[in-house]
Amino acid sequence: MVENRRFFHQYPELSHEEVNTPAKIAEHLRGLGITVRTGVGGNGVVGYLEGGKPGKTVALRADFDALPLQDKKEVPYKSKVPGVMHACAHDAHTSTLLGVAKVLSEKKEELNGNIVFIHQFGEELAPGGAMPMIEDGCLENVDVIFGTHIWATIPVGEIGLRSGPIMAAADRFQIAVQGKGGHGASPHETIDSIAIGASLVSQLQQIISRRINPLEPAVLTVASFHAGNAFNVIADSATIEGTVRTFNPEVQDFIINEMELIIQSTCQGANAGYQFQYNKGYPAVVNHLNETQQLIASAKKVLTDDKIKTMEPIMGGEDFSHYLEKVPGTFFFTGAKNDKVNAVYPHHHPMFDIDEESMLIAGKVLLTATLDYLAQN
Amino acid sequence: MVENRRFFHQYPELSHEEVNTPAKIAEHLRGLGITVRTGVGGNGVVGYLEGGKPGKTVALRADFDALPLQDKKEVPYKSKVPGVMHACAHDAHTSTLLGVAKVLSEKKEELNGNIVFIHQFGEELAPGGAMPMIEDGCLENVDVIFGTHIWATIPVGEIGLRSGPIMAAADRFQIAVQGKGGHGASPHETIDSIAIGASLVSQLQQIISRRINPLEPAVLTVASFHAGNAFNVIADSATIEGTVRTFNPEVQDFIINEMELIIQSTCQGANAGYQFQYNKGYPAVVNHLNETQQLIASAKKVLTDDKIKTMEPIMGGEDFSHYLEKVPGTFFFTGAKNDKVNAVYPHHHPMFDIDEESMLIAGKVLLTATLDYLAQN
Amino acid sequence: MVENRRFFHQYPELSHEEVNTPAKIAEHLRGLGITVRTGVGGNGVVGYLEGGKPGKTVALRADFDALPLQDKKEVPYKSKVPGVMHACAHDAHTSTLLGVAKVLSEKKEELNGNIVFIHQFGEELAPGGAMPMIEDGCLENVDVIFGTHIWATIPVGEIGLRSGPIMAAADRFQIAVQGKGGHGASPHETIDSIAIGASLVSQLQQIISRRINPLEPAVLTVASFHAGNAFNVIADSATIEGTVRTFNPEVQDFIINEMELIIQSTCQGANAGYQFQYNKGYPAVVNHLNETQQLIASAKKVLTDDKIKTMEPIMGGEDFSHYLEKVPGTFFFTGAKNDKVNAVYPHHHPMFDIDEESMLIAGKVLLTATLDYLAQN
Amino acid sequence: MVENRRFFHQYPELSHEEVNTPAKIAEHLRGLGITVRTGVGGNGVVGYLEGGKPGKTVALRADFDALPLQDKKEVPYKSKVPGVMHACAHDAHTSTLLGVAKVLSEKKEELNGNIVFIHQFGEELAPGGAMPMIEDGCLENVDVIFGTHIWATIPVGEIGLRSGPIMAAADRFQIAVQGKGGHGASPHETIDSIAIGASLVSQLQQIISRRINPLEPAVLTVASFHAGNAFNVIADSATIEGTVRTFNPEVQDFIINEMELIIQSTCQGANAGYQFQYNKGYPAVVNHLNETQQLIASAKKVLTDDKIKTMEPIMGGEDFSHYLEKVPGTFFFTGAKNDKVNAVYPHHHPMFDIDEESMLIAGKVLLTATLDYLAQN
Repeated sequence: MVENRRFFHQYPELSHEEVNTPAKIAEHLRGLGITVRTGVGGNGVVGYLEGGKPGKTVALRADFDALPLQDKKEVPYKSKVPGVMHACAHDAHTSTLLGVAKVLSEKKEELNGNIVFIHQFGEELAPGGAMPMIEDGCLENVDVIFGTHIWATIPVGEIGLRSGPIMAAADRFQIAVQGKGGHGASPHETIDSIAIGASLVSQLQQIISRRINPLEPAVLTVASFHAGNAFNVIADSATIEGTVRTFNPEVQDFIINEMELIIQSTCQGANAGYQFQYNKGYPAVVNHLNETQQLIASAKKVLTDDKIKTMEPIMGGEDFSHYLEKVPGTFFFTGAKNDKVNAVYPHHHPMFDIDEESMLIAGKVLLTATLDYLAQN
Repeated sequence: MVENRRFFHQYPELSHEEVNTPAKIAEHLRGLGITVRTGVGGNGVVGYLEGGKPGKTVALRADFDALPLQDKKEVPYKSKVPGVMHACAHDAHTSTLLGVAKVLSEKKEELNGNIVFIHQFGEELAPGGAMPMIEDGCLENVDVIFGTHIWATIPVGEIGLRSGPIMAAADRFQIAVQGKGGHGASPHETIDSIAIGASLVSQLQQIISRRINPLEPAVLTVASFHAGNAFNVIADSATIEGTVRTFNPEVQDFIINEMELIIQSTCQGANAGYQFQYNKGYPAVVNHLNETQQLIASAKKVLTDDKIKTMEPIMGGEDFSHYLEKVPGTFFFTGAKNDKVNAVYPHHHPMFDIDEESMLIAGKVLLTATLDYLAQN
Repeated sequence: MVENRRFFHQYPELSHEEVNTPAKIAEHLRGLGITVRTGVGGNGVVGYLEGGKPGKTVALRADFDALPLQDKKEVPYKSKVPGVMHACAHDAHTSTLLGVAKVLSEKKEELNGNIVFIHQFGEELAPGGAMPMIEDGCLENVDVIFGTHIWATIPVGEIGLRSGPIMAAADRFQIAVQGKGGHGASPHETIDSIAIGASLVSQLQQIISRRINPLEPAVLTVASFHAGNAFNVIADSATIEGTVRTFNPEVQDFIINEMELIIQSTCQGANAGYQFQYNKGYPAVVNHLNETQQLIASAKKVLTDDKIKTMEPIMGGEDFSHYLEKVPGTFFFTGAKNDKVNAVYPHHHPMFDIDEESMLIAGKVLLTATLDYLAQN
Repeated sequence: MVENRRFFHQYPELSHEEVNTPAKIAEHLRGLGITVRTGVGGNGVVGYLEGGKPGKTVALRADFDALPLQDKKEVPYKSKVPGVMHACAHDAHTSTLLGVAKVLSEKKEELNGNIVFIHQFGEELAPGGAMPMIEDGCLENVDVIFGTHIWATIPVGEIGLRSGPIMAAADRFQIAVQGKGGHGASPHETIDSIAIGASLVSQLQQIISRRINPLEPAVLTVASFHAGNAFNVIADSATIEGTVRTFNPEVQDFIINEMELIIQSTCQGANAGYQFQYNKGYPAVVNHLNETQQLIASAKKVLTDDKIKTMEPIMGGEDFSHYLEKVPGTFFFTGAKNDKVNAVYPHHHPMFDIDEESMLIAGKVLLTATLDYLAQN
């Protein structure tokens, strides 16, 4: 696993531009006697392992794309591609799954069912690789799916999970306020797009604090505000961008409606025009209750009870959500934080690294959960 | 006058980069037998005409710099310099003053006093040419000063003026809010510079509406707001720029103090840092009462009463203010609007043009006011 | 004058409830041989003095109502009516006009025209007494009108005035925001009328700072905000009251429109209802140019030039405006401030008093202006 | 139980003014042979039942105070006390516990331990009765505590509970903004307390939306805003009241700090003074994990699995929290909603009523949990 991971770490490929990584994965899987389909939904690779005995089909998923970041850590396996880096542990996910594939392929004849290895491209960049891979059939005949994310803020040796929502729906919006420019000394002859935009920034926050159920976690962030080119010319337009995070699709739709209502009325009250664009990103990752409890039971064979944590949801997004909308399953987080090996930086940081021991734990949990599931179903 | 004006119109020079224009002016003045000093305070030109009889000294001022605009009108005298244009009538001011100089030089022996012709550079770009020219002595021995601005929104045939404030102090400010960036899904780990900036935009307006005397005209405009580079990363800083216009230095200073107070407290209340930079521009142009009344009396010899309008102050700025802080005098506006000659565009517009008849009126008023002043004092 | 003033001071009567005051005035006027009409437009008294020679008709106006305040100063002429007080000098206005009437009645035969003495009720309480008195004919055949206000912030010995707007239009508005109440812990099930009202308070200010010409003085004040009865029950409605002050009817109408637009859109953006009531009060008092200049000329016979001040407009209102909408005229302020006689408190203050010398000055100016007008017209 | 409940329903007593209710309870308990202590911590009643065998001690708690509401329903057991009503089911809690006491007293000899019956006064009105009863020893030797709330929005036949936070900390705050009053036409001479208060209302919301972890439920409601007495006098002070609801004491303290920071800086930025008073109410009710699971296990003997719901926390408060800070235990909700018996109105509503069947279910669950606990510990 370590060898593979370090290889992938040195040769990262950007989302949707993956060529060598899927080829390498396919080669590995084929070397294990696993049937491989490439180009699934784009750059995806799917391996099929038919067990010796009839039974259910378990899918295991790992993503393999990298990020547009410059690797700044000094290690022998540092990225060799300028400006591209595995700063989200997808290299480790891939290597872990290849390791699990090796063990399962060796146990092939004893298996009470089948395994589908889903090596997914393009997780980092919406609209993501999960959806096209599903549309291209990667979940056909699949009964359950498991996946993990190696995680920088959980100590190595632990895993974290919960049933229900575990990662948020991560959406994007853009508001363009169309006012009317003019001389900075004559506001009455203009429609001041900055004053309107500033009012929007304040008012949109009240959706979160006043209009949704306080028990429903949600975030509305205006992350970018741009208007005006000169200190003495009133800006004719303002562009506002941001993100909304939710766990409940009803809350998500409600927020969109309220945003439109507030934007529309505020602009109308100032005689301004507007454009409002809202792009839903990945839905929330919602773990299924039974499959989560089953995975916890399996994990207890690998780890002591105190290392298996019920965790709070994470406000970030993941397209693993799409698989869980189609088949039951669960997604868990595998700790990789260890200051002894300098694995202390957050995801998407140029110094990001993991304790590679995490791969062994992730692999064992996935393997045990798979075998237990096939044995029990 | 028309010939000169069209020449200058074709060969405009940017503020503080004037070379040929002052040379041409100096040549003209010398041709009239006027003593000339060049390089005054930079690119300024000053002509001295000693009258045949002893008396007071009247200064007449015209500015001669152009703007960084592309001339888009189709006339034979269109600018020949790409991206540079006399879109504020300084070409006409210069030609008018040269015309007045011609008449006065011819009447030299009869004059009860002396004339100083101040041809000023760099009016359009603060800190402007007036101050260095004054420091270089252009107002020495001067008893009174008159000036005019050819004006696009007053019909040709009329002049407008008032005693007291006639043009505003035009200042510039920049606020940098220093928050703390972070993930768009985790606002609680950040200090949201956009939320703070938006609050400032709203609160600063209340200085105008709540904190200053409603009888004191003032404008505070935020003209530019820039923060953030991504839809999902909370912006760590926001840059806000704008302008303040006032007529009363006490109000101006009060506004600066209140701005600092609001910025300081708002940032403190959000645990943010800030930088606040305020640059005073030209002071307000404040016409002196007696000199204004005297000029009105003189103008009545040139125009019928109904063509001499008491006008409201203009919120724009002018560095003629500096002269009026040193010596008494007045500044008036000469109408140049005429749709028959397509002189209908505002100042600083690529299609700007004037009815050249305005120069004759401006010249006659300046001339009469000068002669009357010398005769009466 | 002093005797009369002190009598009225001791027996003040509230606006629209005046009984003894008009009776006393009528008695005085009749005693001077002046024809009197009582009950004019309500409680008004009008005296008619026909001059010995034909000519124009001059109206002089004084108001005589008092305020619902407890007189707290210790003087022999202190109010004898609990909770009612002449704290706005209407007692002095009345006595001054009676004094002027005495002089004019004595000069009756020499007068080149006629005098109308308008003793007005109910100035302090809109809709005021001026309008019904005009409708009841008090301005019939009147060619010009003069009036004065004894004024606490101008030193005794001076008068102040200006042509054009001198007192503001003073309007009243009431906004009722209709939200939906509910438990303080469940904002999402309510429509929070306080949050909406607070937003309105901020946004309405931007009419003043952003939407009207900065050269047009205007004030929009929210003076009262009431919502909610308990700390833990979200208020279902909020009541907001305030005043708007303007000098220009176009600005006044524009502000009303913008208020409606902002209130309507803000409530709509929050799914709330609203009621918006706007009551125009007295219009701005706008002095006529020629009559003002004429009064200044007359005043120069009474006072030295330096005691006749051009003053800034006052943001308060007066129903003298109605007379000036019908006939030419002017309204001036007569100084009554003098710390030697403890006349230092503002109008409507329980310690308010005047230097009674002011009545003599006010009377002389009114008298001279009247005689000059009749002589010259 | 029904008879008792209807008796208490007809004779409700306000919080901290309970006299007859505790007397009646004491009489009942004594009638069952239970040792009774009255006047505990005020108006509390505690019954002690020593089991026949040694063991742990279980406390069961019911509150018995009523609300200042007029009973508006038409039933034979309608409140006979004008303006006082059991609109929160405390009558039912009391009767249920008396019913449970009857059964347990009959099983006295078989009990493997002891029972403490805590009949609490003053739950509705902070600072509540729990704390003084604890200080007066009601939890002495107690090992575990159970309690329930009959609940109007859960269908009769069901119970709801969760481990961890189940009811919020409900706090109260009051902000007094001290500005400077003055004439509505002269805002610049005042410090406008309404403008400042309105700004506070908006800014305080951003604590919820921007400054706390979005996964931490919290509410900050401004429920009352009062300022000003006249439409034309700027209000010198504004009084703002509201409530904060949280589940996590760290979040609670953080919100208090941020409120102070925002209030302090906003007032400072407007030259205003302020007073900020924050009263912590009851802490959050936090159910203990093991005791909750044990109660669920016991409840399964009484109800089918689908009638035992994991519920979301409730943003309202309860002083049962104080008991759970001292000893382990759990608090659950017993459904009482039934439109067949018109039990459809929310708590604190003048038409509030319950399906009395709920008492039987509540009693059986409490009884079973008690017996199971004693048997197992």
